[in-house]
Amino acid sequence: MELKNSIRVIENFPKEGISFKDITTILQDGKVLKQTIDDIVEYLRDKQIDVIVGPEARGFLFGVPVAYALGAGFVPVRKPGKLPYETLQIEYELEYGTDKLEIHKDAIKPGQRVVIVDDLLATGGTVAAVTKLIEQMGGDVISLNFVIELTDLHGKEKLKDYDIMSLVKYNS
Amino acid sequence: MELKNSIRVIENFPKEGISFKDITTILQDGKVLKQTIDDIVEYLRDKQIDVIVGPEARGFLFGVPVAYALGAGFVPVRKPGKLPYETLQIEYELEYGTDKLEIHKDAIKPGQRVVIVDDLLATGGTVAAVTKLIEQMGGDVISLNFVIELTDLHGKEKLKDYDIMSLVKYNS
Repeated sequence: MELKNSIRVIENFPKEGISFKDITTILQDGKVLKQTIDDIVEYLRDKQIDVIVGPEARGFLFGVPVAYALGAGFVPVRKPGKLPYETLQIEYELEYGTDKLEIHKDAIKPGQRVVIVDDLLATGGTVAAVTKLIEQMGGDVISLNFVIELTDLHGKEKLKDYDIMSLVKYNS
Repeated sequence: MELKNSIRVIENFPKEGISFKDITTILQDGKVLKQTIDDIVEYLRDKQIDVIVGPEARGFLFGVPVAYALGAGFVPVRKPGKLPYETLQIEYELEYGTDKLEIHKDAIKPGQRVVIVDDLLATGGTVAAVTKLIEQMGGDVISLNFVIELTDLHGKEKLKDYDIMSLVKYNS
């Protein structure tokens, strides 16, 4: 199965000049969804993963089924104000301005083996921030897994200390 | 396993007087996450479900692993402007004011057997709106499944034409 055939490309979304990769067409086909999750699970199977971390909201879509299939836990990373318990917060730079993310401060225990799962690796800014949150809690970031990687945005350079696996690559 | 023991109750979140049910403590324990998903899957196993629909964002957390385990597809329902392709939109009433939700207009085919999965049944307003979107597309709403039901908010009365299953009940 060629996963790329199941991704719908939408031009000029969310703004002019962006060629958006729509992953809802992966999700809505049960066979494609299963194969996509199983491909990530296969990569992680022998790595003794304790926790999958997924950033809001599209990271939830792929991260939880991977956690379920591995028997691991899942920890959400969210925008400020969404998580109800005490949090750790990180502020990180975007192309223009900054953004903030939060994680529950008791969500990861020191020494736990953690994987970040998200739909898309672009510039890597969000994922780099999430690795910092995990490491502040003493978690060990074993791998970063993505459904899609936009290779010409060079996210891998920002994340060169980590193991990275993506299922589908686009040169934008 | 008593699932209620894995739900963290946080008083006065997101505002004074609300006793918030935190489901991140279900997710972060791999065994509890697996049992929770398997309990929903067991209920749906023989119902020939084609598609699970989950509202943003906590519906994603439980809906996708249920879809994965059943071999069904998953369709997200999101706030306006988040879905990249053409959508159907519904406006519905809240306690104060209104809210809007969208679904991709090609996400469900006529005659498909659909289940809505969400973390919480409160007044039922969101889920009632989602049933209307599904039915507009010709989908057949087979069941509404929740991790938690707040019984004293009477969501079941608003949804009395539907089969409802919730794993844990609170009288607020």
